[in-house]
Amino acid sequence: MLADQQFLRIPGPTPIPPSVQRAMNQTMIGHRGQEAKDLIQNIRPRLKPIFGTGQDVMVIAGSGTAGLETAVVNVAQPNDEVLVVVTGSFGDRFTKICEAYQLQTHIINVPWGEAVQPEQIEAYLKQHPSIKVVFTTFCETSTGVLNPIKEIASVVHQLSEALLVVDGVSCIGGVESRMDEWGVDVLITGSQKALMLPAGLTFVAASERAWKVIKENPRPRFYLNLSSYQNKLQEDSTPFTPALSLLFGLDQVLNLIEEEGFSEVVKRHELMKNMTRSACKALGVPLLTSDETASPTVTAIKPGDFDSEQFRKTVKQEFGLTLAGGQQQLKGKIFRIGHMGYTSPSDVLQTISLLEMGLYRIGKEVELGKGVAAAQAVYLNQ
Amino acid sequence: MLADQQFLRIPGPTPIPPSVQRAMNQTMIGHRGQEAKDLIQNIRPRLKPIFGTGQDVMVIAGSGTAGLETAVVNVAQPNDEVLVVVTGSFGDRFTKICEAYQLQTHIINVPWGEAVQPEQIEAYLKQHPSIKVVFTTFCETSTGVLNPIKEIASVVHQLSEALLVVDGVSCIGGVESRMDEWGVDVLITGSQKALMLPAGLTFVAASERAWKVIKENPRPRFYLNLSSYQNKLQEDSTPFTPALSLLFGLDQVLNLIEEEGFSEVVKRHELMKNMTRSACKALGVPLLTSDETASPTVTAIKPGDFDSEQFRKTVKQEFGLTLAGGQQQLKGKIFRIGHMGYTSPSDVLQTISLLEMGLYRIGKEVELGKGVAAAQAVYLNQ
Amino acid sequence: MLADQQFLRIPGPTPIPPSVQRAMNQTMIGHRGQEAKDLIQNIRPRLKPIFGTGQDVMVIAGSGTAGLETAVVNVAQPNDEVLVVVTGSFGDRFTKICEAYQLQTHIINVPWGEAVQPEQIEAYLKQHPSIKVVFTTFCETSTGVLNPIKEIASVVHQLSEALLVVDGVSCIGGVESRMDEWGVDVLITGSQKALMLPAGLTFVAASERAWKVIKENPRPRFYLNLSSYQNKLQEDSTPFTPALSLLFGLDQVLNLIEEEGFSEVVKRHELMKNMTRSACKALGVPLLTSDETASPTVTAIKPGDFDSEQFRKTVKQEFGLTLAGGQQQLKGKIFRIGHMGYTSPSDVLQTISLLEMGLYRIGKEVELGKGVAAAQAVYLNQ
Amino acid sequence: MLADQQFLRIPGPTPIPPSVQRAMNQTMIGHRGQEAKDLIQNIRPRLKPIFGTGQDVMVIAGSGTAGLETAVVNVAQPNDEVLVVVTGSFGDRFTKICEAYQLQTHIINVPWGEAVQPEQIEAYLKQHPSIKVVFTTFCETSTGVLNPIKEIASVVHQLSEALLVVDGVSCIGGVESRMDEWGVDVLITGSQKALMLPAGLTFVAASERAWKVIKENPRPRFYLNLSSYQNKLQEDSTPFTPALSLLFGLDQVLNLIEEEGFSEVVKRHELMKNMTRSACKALGVPLLTSDETASPTVTAIKPGDFDSEQFRKTVKQEFGLTLAGGQQQLKGKIFRIGHMGYTSPSDVLQTISLLEMGLYRIGKEVELGKGVAAAQAVYLNQ
Repeated sequence: MLADQQFLRIPGPTPIPPSVQRAMNQTMIGHRGQEAKDLIQNIRPRLKPIFGTGQDVMVIAGSGTAGLETAVVNVAQPNDEVLVVVTGSFGDRFTKICEAYQLQTHIINVPWGEAVQPEQIEAYLKQHPSIKVVFTTFCETSTGVLNPIKEIASVVHQLSEALLVVDGVSCIGGVESRMDEWGVDVLITGSQKALMLPAGLTFVAASERAWKVIKENPRPRFYLNLSSYQNKLQEDSTPFTPALSLLFGLDQVLNLIEEEGFSEVVKRHELMKNMTRSACKALGVPLLTSDETASPTVTAIKPGDFDSEQFRKTVKQEFGLTLAGGQQQLKGKIFRIGHMGYTSPSDVLQTISLLEMGLYRIGKEVELGKGVAAAQAVYLNQ
Repeated sequence: MLADQQFLRIPGPTPIPPSVQRAMNQTMIGHRGQEAKDLIQNIRPRLKPIFGTGQDVMVIAGSGTAGLETAVVNVAQPNDEVLVVVTGSFGDRFTKICEAYQLQTHIINVPWGEAVQPEQIEAYLKQHPSIKVVFTTFCETSTGVLNPIKEIASVVHQLSEALLVVDGVSCIGGVESRMDEWGVDVLITGSQKALMLPAGLTFVAASERAWKVIKENPRPRFYLNLSSYQNKLQEDSTPFTPALSLLFGLDQVLNLIEEEGFSEVVKRHELMKNMTRSACKALGVPLLTSDETASPTVTAIKPGDFDSEQFRKTVKQEFGLTLAGGQQQLKGKIFRIGHMGYTSPSDVLQTISLLEMGLYRIGKEVELGKGVAAAQAVYLNQ
Repeated sequence: MLADQQFLRIPGPTPIPPSVQRAMNQTMIGHRGQEAKDLIQNIRPRLKPIFGTGQDVMVIAGSGTAGLETAVVNVAQPNDEVLVVVTGSFGDRFTKICEAYQLQTHIINVPWGEAVQPEQIEAYLKQHPSIKVVFTTFCETSTGVLNPIKEIASVVHQLSEALLVVDGVSCIGGVESRMDEWGVDVLITGSQKALMLPAGLTFVAASERAWKVIKENPRPRFYLNLSSYQNKLQEDSTPFTPALSLLFGLDQVLNLIEEEGFSEVVKRHELMKNMTRSACKALGVPLLTSDETASPTVTAIKPGDFDSEQFRKTVKQEFGLTLAGGQQQLKGKIFRIGHMGYTSPSDVLQTISLLEMGLYRIGKEVELGKGVAAAQAVYLNQ
Repeated sequence: MLADQQFLRIPGPTPIPPSVQRAMNQTMIGHRGQEAKDLIQNIRPRLKPIFGTGQDVMVIAGSGTAGLETAVVNVAQPNDEVLVVVTGSFGDRFTKICEAYQLQTHIINVPWGEAVQPEQIEAYLKQHPSIKVVFTTFCETSTGVLNPIKEIASVVHQLSEALLVVDGVSCIGGVESRMDEWGVDVLITGSQKALMLPAGLTFVAASERAWKVIKENPRPRFYLNLSSYQNKLQEDSTPFTPALSLLFGLDQVLNLIEEEGFSEVVKRHELMKNMTRSACKALGVPLLTSDETASPTVTAIKPGDFDSEQFRKTVKQEFGLTLAGGQQQLKGKIFRIGHMGYTSPSDVLQTISLLEMGLYRIGKEVELGKGVAAAQAVYLNQ
């Protein structure tokens, strides 16, 4: 293994582009001066197309979970009935947050590895018309499922006045998102996934309907009070000291996305998904999710005949390739390949080639080059 | 003014040392792998002497205000009576957080620019024995006052069972702190002040007594639930994705502090305070605070005969020198010079020399070099 | 193509490891102070094993060609008869330098793509016993041939008193070099190849025999006077201002080499050569050089049935993959893949996978994955 | 002393601006591809105004001395009579190079610390009409003298056909240079002085008259053959691998100079000189040079009543302030303060304040603040 070389192929944190790294090194500035205002003003409008909204996107210093909690404490009023759609461990996190806040929490448990079917939500809401908020996950990081948000939004709004909150942490920036058009009320993401930054920022946008609820919501909250952020954003500022080095980087991330073209970015992620999946199929390595429900940003593999932890350890030690394991009920049962953010089809080919060698190393019969060939074919025939 | 040169002399964010900048550029790693564990394990014990505690210091991704809120939501139980000692705008922030959480909030309002006298707290607690938590500020950033925490702790514990929460955001890392010895129950700081990092991390340590309350506290909380951080820290991990690039930097910050020696760091801050104050006195520029109550990390100046905003604008435009203005009731009435973190006595001399020139520029009669001479004398006679 | 992603796979300049990049960012220092002395002292002994010598290695600010000229002007006395072994464009450069200095220049012209046979040199020296210096190339960058320096040295020293000068620019740091044991008199390299730095440094070591000639050589020279460097190196200094940022980087390069182990570095380069060659063979892409003479650092491909320039342009535009073209008589006829320095077997697999796709793109029939599979097999069976 | 803080105030190497540092971190590129062409094309026209010429400026990888030698070997033909004007150690270096190349070297020795008087050259050339090249120094780094190049050029061209070669290493980029207008035939500089880069590049421009001589000059030379650089520059390329990371930085240096405005840069250097000198006078610290001959980039101080080496050691150890000592005959007798490149009037004030404290520390009686006051007065009355 080459000293100082690492291949980080997990569903976040993801590698930082060199120009973003350089941007984060800019000389520190005061957070209340003109330079900071200019920076925020420059970032502000350019986040909107990535979320697919005309609303402002709030940027909060904190992990993605802080963003999830922001949604809960701002849109769910005390004693509200809420519905959480759990398709994996990050859906489960919504449950935990809702329960921590003593909401009347309904849960739709979907087998991990599957997407929720909008009909399930439809049926549930029919039975429970008093539900005020539906919490769901766009890309479920823990399984690599991309839930059908557009369709979910459609059934939610058809049947109820409930707000739809979507955790987009592990896909926004890598998939098409039409928050306004689809009718998503709150959309959350984090910096360390498709947005190519270190962890430390979470992003939250809310619909007009959601803002109305937020502003009337009597629930105690302070640091995560979305209204404070909105108020200050009108002056291109923040209520609390912003994580400026990450904002320096975010500005350059937006440059990179615009240089490539956001629709091209989305296509690239779709392509990387298809390449990864075709490779796995060609190699006879079982995928956790179906083609229809697979996320463009992360692919989960559920080995039938080898030990995923031994495999992960092998590729880490021998090639410096970091893959993610399973979480909670999937711990030890799956591994996950991230292909988002600063990752290219060329990187996917490299990852597949290392996957093949890792399989060989742990004794699995594998036809070398077959996965790569399948991925190449996908690329060439796109 | 030299292109690409800035002198950031505000009480946070502060300049980043070059070696810390480089450290933050380390190749991104997985947050659940061995590298992250090693990093956290390396940082963990070295934060303790800076806080002056044998307890673990929790590191949370968020602004300093998230740290303040962490204290409130973890130690104050619903309906608790609490006392907030307000000596400036950050004491006021504690009030706002307590009120947001509907605590029965008592307030001791100290004129801004003065320190609280422990006797005031003593008297108040005698009258209100049901107070469960006292919130106070170590260095009040908005005025440059350093409140007498040791003495405060003494009266608090003598009189009551109340927990003492201390906001140390703008001084921890630059002043002596003996949390355990003094009897501070919760001590909070942030990354972007004396700790020489970009904003984005807040640090919270709690005493054994505080932990007992925290663990029994039924108040809803999730992202800021201190117990989650403590539990995960036992495995050198974090409950939510940590802001890894800042942790890379923190590791190097600790190297720098240890290289200089923490007691030397403390002396350097004391010296910078004395240099700055002597210079102001020599120049006839009125200080907001008394010598006895002045903070080693920030000095507030209350001009009698010139416009502080015009002055700040002048030195910014002509020399690239960023000073802080006043906040809230002090807005437009004072300006503040930060001298903490990656700042040396040599930098103070430079700042004073620019201060003199700025005063001249706005038409104030000033004997050039007199402030510098006074600061030099302090340095040389230390 | 992903914005901000480039794959630089030419035989120099080569990619810079991230930790070397960071090291080069160290705060500038005086070149005559203790810090500079410490730096040079730290570098000095650690260059020797890479050259395979007990002699000091001089570090000169300049391109590799400055190093070649250093050899010529220091060891060849005016009017000397010298022999240049030309196996490609860098052998040719030696000829040009020798001719510029009006030496009586004999040339052995070896067909480009072949290595010289020691017997050729043996025969030539027998016929021309008055030859004082033999100039030869270790790795001929322009063809990817590694000339048999050990055997060449053996015949040279057996037959004559001639000094043997070896251009190791495109291989030292990636291949075994036993300068002292083999009897190489002057060995030269550059920073931007296997030594993983930007261009700007050239390195020259000389044997005791060579030093004797150098010191008595009356030829005018100043900046490239090797004796000046040797004299100053005794005090861990340089005669002229050194390129300090590159020396900062060099120090870290040596750390990386030592961390991996230099013999492991050599094995890695050998492996990357074998992987690349096996892949080309599997794909039916003709190699310019034979297995016996191929360099571990660069592989030249001589396409029979496709246009190498069109191919290079295609992979550059579509994948950001930079390959080198042919030089001089090989211009437009070959392309070259660099696999040296900060390049791993994993990078080779990626390069091969892109090579396959590039071939497909320009219309060549290619069995996708076959080259990758061959390279993987080499890796796994090493 | 603050860990990780250094004040580098020597006449080169000089501090690197942060944005230049970042620019040098750009991902490495091939030196023969379009990116390199674009880079060179972007740099090429922007160097000309800094030299004050319509001619191309050649950029060569090497130290400043390589640039001096480039001048010698390109314009002086074998056996030429040449005149070297020696006003310090870098004039002396020209002598050594000329003598190394066995030129008939005439020398005008000017006492170190004084500028040459054009009349001296006039008289000399009258007596020696066969002199073909006059070598002189613009800013003599070792003494801080700025020789009157305009006047020298005038007498040289009035009296003879000799070419005028000027070593501008330690001032070009910080002083006005009108190469074409004044009639300078060869002008040389280096990267690590007023051009704010690490060492490793030297720059050479030649007049039309000089090019004529260069092209007909039969002297052997190769790496430093200026014609090779000129030829390749027509294609925005270089004959040998360029030091790309430094070129990345150079591009940003030119941005910074243009942002400030080159005439402003020149004024800033003039101002820094006057500030430094006034401070020294106010402090009773004797200057080596007269006001009329002092360079805007470096000031030499010749202490009457204290030990300059002890002083330098003291300020280095206590404040991290690096000053330069004397060279050759001035060793131990003077010290030098650099104020060029990435240095501002604010930095000069800081340096003066540390100078005062250093003088105090070594026991010299000094009125604190007096030097700073004098420097401030210069700044404010400009």
